[in-house]
Amino acid sequence: MKKLLSIKGIKLAACESGIRYPNKKDLAIIELSPESHISAAFTQNTACAAPVEIARSHHSNASTRLLIINSGNANAGTGRQGMEDAISYCKKASELFAFKVEQVLPFSTGVIGEILPVERISSSFKQLKDSLHEDNWQNVAEAIMTTDTKPKGISKEMTINGGESITITGIAKGAGMIQPNMATMLAFIATDISVNKDDLNKLLKTNINESFNRITVDGETSTNDACVLISTSGSGHKFSDLNKQDKENFCYLLREIFVYLAQSIVRDGEGATKFITVEVQGAQSKEQADTVAYSIANSPLVKTAFFAQDPNWGRILSAAGKTQCDMGSLKMYICDICVYDSSTSNTYNESTLQELMLKTDVTIRLDLGCGKDGTRIWTTDLSYDYIKINAEYRN
Amino acid sequence: MKKLLSIKGIKLAACESGIRYPNKKDLAIIELSPESHISAAFTQNTACAAPVEIARSHHSNASTRLLIINSGNANAGTGRQGMEDAISYCKKASELFAFKVEQVLPFSTGVIGEILPVERISSSFKQLKDSLHEDNWQNVAEAIMTTDTKPKGISKEMTINGGESITITGIAKGAGMIQPNMATMLAFIATDISVNKDDLNKLLKTNINESFNRITVDGETSTNDACVLISTSGSGHKFSDLNKQDKENFCYLLREIFVYLAQSIVRDGEGATKFITVEVQGAQSKEQADTVAYSIANSPLVKTAFFAQDPNWGRILSAAGKTQCDMGSLKMYICDICVYDSSTSNTYNESTLQELMLKTDVTIRLDLGCGKDGTRIWTTDLSYDYIKINAEYRN
Repeated sequence: MKKLLSIKGIKLAACESGIRYPNKKDLAIIELSPESHISAAFTQNTACAAPVEIARSHHSNASTRLLIINSGNANAGTGRQGMEDAISYCKKASELFAFKVEQVLPFSTGVIGEILPVERISSSFKQLKDSLHEDNWQNVAEAIMTTDTKPKGISKEMTINGGESITITGIAKGAGMIQPNMATMLAFIATDISVNKDDLNKLLKTNINESFNRITVDGETSTNDACVLISTSGSGHKFSDLNKQDKENFCYLLREIFVYLAQSIVRDGEGATKFITVEVQGAQSKEQADTVAYSIANSPLVKTAFFAQDPNWGRILSAAGKTQCDMGSLKMYICDICVYDSSTSNTYNESTLQELMLKTDVTIRLDLGCGKDGTRIWTTDLSYDYIKINAEYRN
Repeated sequence: MKKLLSIKGIKLAACESGIRYPNKKDLAIIELSPESHISAAFTQNTACAAPVEIARSHHSNASTRLLIINSGNANAGTGRQGMEDAISYCKKASELFAFKVEQVLPFSTGVIGEILPVERISSSFKQLKDSLHEDNWQNVAEAIMTTDTKPKGISKEMTINGGESITITGIAKGAGMIQPNMATMLAFIATDISVNKDDLNKLLKTNINESFNRITVDGETSTNDACVLISTSGSGHKFSDLNKQDKENFCYLLREIFVYLAQSIVRDGEGATKFITVEVQGAQSKEQADTVAYSIANSPLVKTAFFAQDPNWGRILSAAGKTQCDMGSLKMYICDICVYDSSTSNTYNESTLQELMLKTDVTIRLDLGCGKDGTRIWTTDLSYDYIKINAEYRN
């Protein structure tokens, strides 16, 4: 990971609070300047965690000043106790910082169904406050990791008005229980340009749909997904004042950051050895394209074939067909080689294809030939290590 | 497997035709008496195999006399060539037996996307015809196996009119690519009682919905699923003549056979170490109950937890919640121990539960508490061996 650039208006801190494992950073805070705006999206899983419910409610009732994020325990499936715990440490933090409790948002990720060690969290706030610094993005990226093998983050700078500079930095975590639905795993993206609430909400929604909502590792929508976009205005510039070209550039860079972070989650997917792009074209609707793409991306038979570096397109065909889409004019490509064309016989070179399958990045493309809509999503293969990681998770 | 009873009116034969592997029975025929009726259901996968399309069409156009079943090659994804191949060997067989070609139904199972070695099939018919025998059910059950580790079959006898006897025998195959949709893997069930077409269709539909349509190994709907119910009238008795008690007994036994065969497929699921029953109660509709049950049964995180014999109910909670069902009054039981009750705190004994998890047969039961509908389905865990079997399938 390249060095993450600081965002004027944001200070961060992380520490080892001993939530689950010793010698593991597991608690972080992000303090926002009073001028900051945030937009946030949360999981649509109805078994959502206590911190999700509280963050959602606090966010809609006050201007956010502090994010508290812990790993190692999801505080999900913990009932009333979980709600009381999350509120209790938000309150502790709000007192220390002299904020209203609604200005504090809690985020958790980790094992489901265990009571949070609230004391360990609350007693770490003083230490965290004392170590707040603009330059702590990397530490926070590490603190929010669970089964992730590496921290995920990226920064982009651009010049506006032909000289002055604005910055965007984003971090994310996630490796398993990944098929975000209208939200994402934990991701925090911030810019020092001032963006008004409406624009910020639009930017979040659009970008999530083209990034975090286009990935799947195992088809599992987490109880704790959350994505936060922060605008601090620390650069002294306003999004609404940008000229057309600068605005386009900013949106392009922001999109790049969302997509990069979403793809980083897939690349670090539990046990993943392949990064698979699934494209569906020629569909009757966006929904049909998505249904077919996810049916392929979540197919354990397709995933195990790709783990074996075997271009077993019969399984892709079957995974598409089980959605009951029209397959009369189907064409299928693996790594841009046409492996199936419903109108002619197969003539591709198996050994060329076998060689392309050895790469880490591979693509599956289907042209359903029955419409004009399409989609593109990203996924992983399914390996022994996925089983290992998830069979041993609580042991 | 106990000895399978013959059904008067049905003769069978199986042989090694060398379709894919040497020294493996891979081709079978089943000849039906002229008085027989059949009812058949096929996969709804739109990428269905050539033999499925032909069997469906032949079945609706003539009274079936001969079933031809091969393993080792699914003849799916084979385009026009696949259709021509299937028709060609049906024609060859029809000439040998002096049947119309529409009286012959082809069934295939095995690898997708490879051209069928038609010559090997056609040249085996003479040998098969010569070895036809009422007592060959076991041989056919073996010939239709692919990744199955054991043949699957069962017979039931009952007495009617207080003394005379009728018989039902069924065989099936399947271990992977298992989540039949309105049909099933290959299954052939026959009785020597005469059942008219309407009743036979009703019996097939009802029983499929309570057996083969209630199982999943990996959420994959095959291109080749087919289930055939045969009535030969060989016993000289008619279903419509049975008294109420005998009719009920017959339907009960038939259901038992369907459920037994469906469960056999799950028990022999690829890499399976657990037989998991998932029950959902208190749902707002049958559809909601099914959606929640399949979301749990197909969750790789739930399946890997059960492989590890870990009652990780947090993953079950999350898998249910991702369907966005109402979870406000949820109660969850693993092996009949309440592990989650939204109205109170958890108080179950973890070590008792751990011990129950060591059994092969385990249950997950959810009471959604928001309605009166329910469902029950059967599934497996997800183990290293599933990956092994499916990563090495074509190698």
